[in-house]
Amino acid sequence: MAKNLTTRSEDYSKWYNELVVQADLAENSGVRGCMVIKPYGYAIWEKMQAELDRMFKETGHENAYFPLFIPKSYFSKEASHVDGFAKECAVVTHYRLKNAEDGSGIIVDPDAKLEEELIVRPTSETIIWDTYRKWVQSYRDLPLLINQWANVVRWEMRTRLFLRTAEFLWQEGHTAHATEKEAIAEAEQMMHVYADFVENYMAVPVIKGVKTESERFAGALETYCIEALMQDGKALQAGTSHFLGQNFAKAFDVKFATKEGKQEYVWATSWGVSTRLMGALVMTHSDDNGLVIPPKLAPNQVVIVPIYRNDEQFDAVSEVAKELQKELRAQGVRVKFDDRDTQKPGWKFNEYEMKGVPVRIAIGPKDLENGTFEVARRDTLSKEIISKDKIVATVVGLMDEIQTNLYTKAVSYRTNHTTEVDTYEQFKEVLEAKGGFISAHWDGTTETEEQIKNETKATIRCIPLDGKKEAGSCIITGKPSKGRVLFAKAY
Amino acid sequence: MAKNLTTRSEDYSKWYNELVVQADLAENSGVRGCMVIKPYGYAIWEKMQAELDRMFKETGHENAYFPLFIPKSYFSKEASHVDGFAKECAVVTHYRLKNAEDGSGIIVDPDAKLEEELIVRPTSETIIWDTYRKWVQSYRDLPLLINQWANVVRWEMRTRLFLRTAEFLWQEGHTAHATEKEAIAEAEQMMHVYADFVENYMAVPVIKGVKTESERFAGALETYCIEALMQDGKALQAGTSHFLGQNFAKAFDVKFATKEGKQEYVWATSWGVSTRLMGALVMTHSDDNGLVIPPKLAPNQVVIVPIYRNDEQFDAVSEVAKELQKELRAQGVRVKFDDRDTQKPGWKFNEYEMKGVPVRIAIGPKDLENGTFEVARRDTLSKEIISKDKIVATVVGLMDEIQTNLYTKAVSYRTNHTTEVDTYEQFKEVLEAKGGFISAHWDGTTETEEQIKNETKATIRCIPLDGKKEAGSCIITGKPSKGRVLFAKAY
Repeated sequence: MAKNLTTRSEDYSKWYNELVVQADLAENSGVRGCMVIKPYGYAIWEKMQAELDRMFKETGHENAYFPLFIPKSYFSKEASHVDGFAKECAVVTHYRLKNAEDGSGIIVDPDAKLEEELIVRPTSETIIWDTYRKWVQSYRDLPLLINQWANVVRWEMRTRLFLRTAEFLWQEGHTAHATEKEAIAEAEQMMHVYADFVENYMAVPVIKGVKTESERFAGALETYCIEALMQDGKALQAGTSHFLGQNFAKAFDVKFATKEGKQEYVWATSWGVSTRLMGALVMTHSDDNGLVIPPKLAPNQVVIVPIYRNDEQFDAVSEVAKELQKELRAQGVRVKFDDRDTQKPGWKFNEYEMKGVPVRIAIGPKDLENGTFEVARRDTLSKEIISKDKIVATVVGLMDEIQTNLYTKAVSYRTNHTTEVDTYEQFKEVLEAKGGFISAHWDGTTETEEQIKNETKATIRCIPLDGKKEAGSCIITGKPSKGRVLFAKAY
Repeated sequence: MAKNLTTRSEDYSKWYNELVVQADLAENSGVRGCMVIKPYGYAIWEKMQAELDRMFKETGHENAYFPLFIPKSYFSKEASHVDGFAKECAVVTHYRLKNAEDGSGIIVDPDAKLEEELIVRPTSETIIWDTYRKWVQSYRDLPLLINQWANVVRWEMRTRLFLRTAEFLWQEGHTAHATEKEAIAEAEQMMHVYADFVENYMAVPVIKGVKTESERFAGALETYCIEALMQDGKALQAGTSHFLGQNFAKAFDVKFATKEGKQEYVWATSWGVSTRLMGALVMTHSDDNGLVIPPKLAPNQVVIVPIYRNDEQFDAVSEVAKELQKELRAQGVRVKFDDRDTQKPGWKFNEYEMKGVPVRIAIGPKDLENGTFEVARRDTLSKEIISKDKIVATVVGLMDEIQTNLYTKAVSYRTNHTTEVDTYEQFKEVLEAKGGFISAHWDGTTETEEQIKNETKATIRCIPLDGKKEAGSCIITGKPSKGRVLFAKAY
């Protein structure tokens, strides 16, 4: 594998695009805006899915599956929802192809037009709430705690692998509750679950907060979010959890009989994370040599590369490598022994560096003589010679150490790129000079938010939940604010 | 839960439709032909997925993900393939909605017409082989062993839950090989993997065979299949694996450099099973009281129901129940303790009978006195009193016993419903009287096959791989045959 990756300082955006392809995570397909997730990228996504799915189940949720298609009339029932998604909907209008009569090839059969057009789901609130009407009659049927793993389509005009694609994979939770309080508690809980996953598995620190009104999900009364900071100083929304009030229950007439026998509308939440998380993972940890994957999500945590000049050496090295692989696997470490004879060790070193495998172990004839292994860490690019009696403990220990180091580095980067400012001058200076999160007072109006966005491209990422509630004056209008909010340019 | 299930003998088809809904597996949605897979149904599907996915990985396959949409021009590249699927394609023609100018509501924006229509994938050979062209250059890139878990859409006019739906979930394997021999070996291997799963996890015996030319997948040179027999004497195709020759490689120009430096087309296979397996599972084992789920796929293998008249009794019973739950879980048994006070024991008994939970344990005050448990098997509907010292071993043993019993029963049903006939008269008599598989001589022509199909609705399910290769005469034309083939009416 040739090292021809653009560096981050040269062109961060180009570095990202090249890296995703060169590390075999994903590539563009022949279909505008739709990506192919390659086996290596999908293996990481599967690890993410497995952990998230476990967390959802531990918090009482069950999986189900709802239709890909949503009749146009359903989609239109919740007004702000359709406004939010109408401009990017893929629409199915026909259900058959046929041979053109003039022999020019295959055409859409004009006689097979659907009575009602179907929208390819951009999100499933409408089809799911149409179903919940049948599932909810009494307080005994609540809460409904359901999650779906699915593909969704939003017809984006400008797409980038993982970050913004016309089709993407995600999970969407949709819950129904008897009371407003319970629904809010659920929405908050799922924000915490997401933060737990992103911080402890992806090693990406996040700020928990709520969105301003203009940044809320179409149809939500409150949008909880987790915001991460990428290495170019731009923020990335890593997950959202919405308190939907009774909007969808009213649009789809979902009522329940209370214990007292009254009919009331149900309270709702929805929450989701997507393959966009892959983009956050890549952009938080990776470097100019390639990917850096945290051990908890690495398909291979350790790769063993044999060094040899002849068959005899290969056999001797292989024996030790296989024994080590066995011992590490017994400790729950995912180890690959790359014994391919089609590639040289140097090529393999580059390949695994590009693919971000946390630990690389090389074994050569010298090591056999000395009873040692060469252990290289991907995160620090450092190498060490480890003796046979310490190798298993060292590698097992490195799993935690690397995971922690990546998280600590990311926290430190964020700390260095979070700035409190008290004037709009400072705001613009900091944004220009180093980006990152800017903590500033805001008067709470959409007008001010819009002005800042138009003039600087920075948006309010969130009103942090654990932010200081100090009094202050808006950096634009000087009007009183209730506390600082976080601005940043964002993906 | 009221017992109002139509019996199998009254109306098998109605029994199936009611059962799927009453047991909370799935229901029809507001979208024509598309189903909602409910949490209980999805939990069973997840167990199937997990086992299949493990088997695919153990045989060297990796997962990946390809676009939902296929440009019409790709789709048309392999002639027999497009012929096979053109009549049932959902077609995306537009990418935006807007408010109608006359205020009549939301309409499809006529200005947002796609330059080229997109087909919602009915199967992914074309988009995948368009991608493989980029992935395959040399023999070193082969074999490519890839699987995808996805939703697909085939616009069926008459649909039934799980058995035939416009959208369904499935996995589709797509492999590329350097030689014809390897590709055929792969296609055969996957048929065996499917048979292994269906027999050992679903407890459904299958016949392995190949399809006749007219029943092959559109674009295949050979279709391997596994065929199961349902309780109404109709066959169900449970999985197929296709040897595709070089058809798709030629259509999409996928060539590789051999070791000798020659350019050759790649050899292909594809193979899939779908949520249709859920239908096979239901129809093979279930009875007039509801579902019967084999232990290996049951989300809950055991349910414990407490019997009590007051809080004191409840507490005492609960303590024993929780202890048992813990002990059984330690043995790897999936146990639910249903301590809901909103439902009576009788209601719970009916519910778990309907849902096919393999073992039900009841504990009441009498049991506490005697140190016993009442253990009920769902498969035999028998009950037994088991003492405390034997309960764990008994229940653990029942898991295997029930799994084996279900399989044995299904084999026995199939044996009793497989008939050898030597005349067309006999053929029609048997088909009418008891259905099932009919083993008969056939002259190998599509004309004869068509005639039998038109006259009796029976099709050739497969040419069994381990069928007797005896000589004989076709039951229709009297011409020589090379061996018996299996006929049946089929789902």
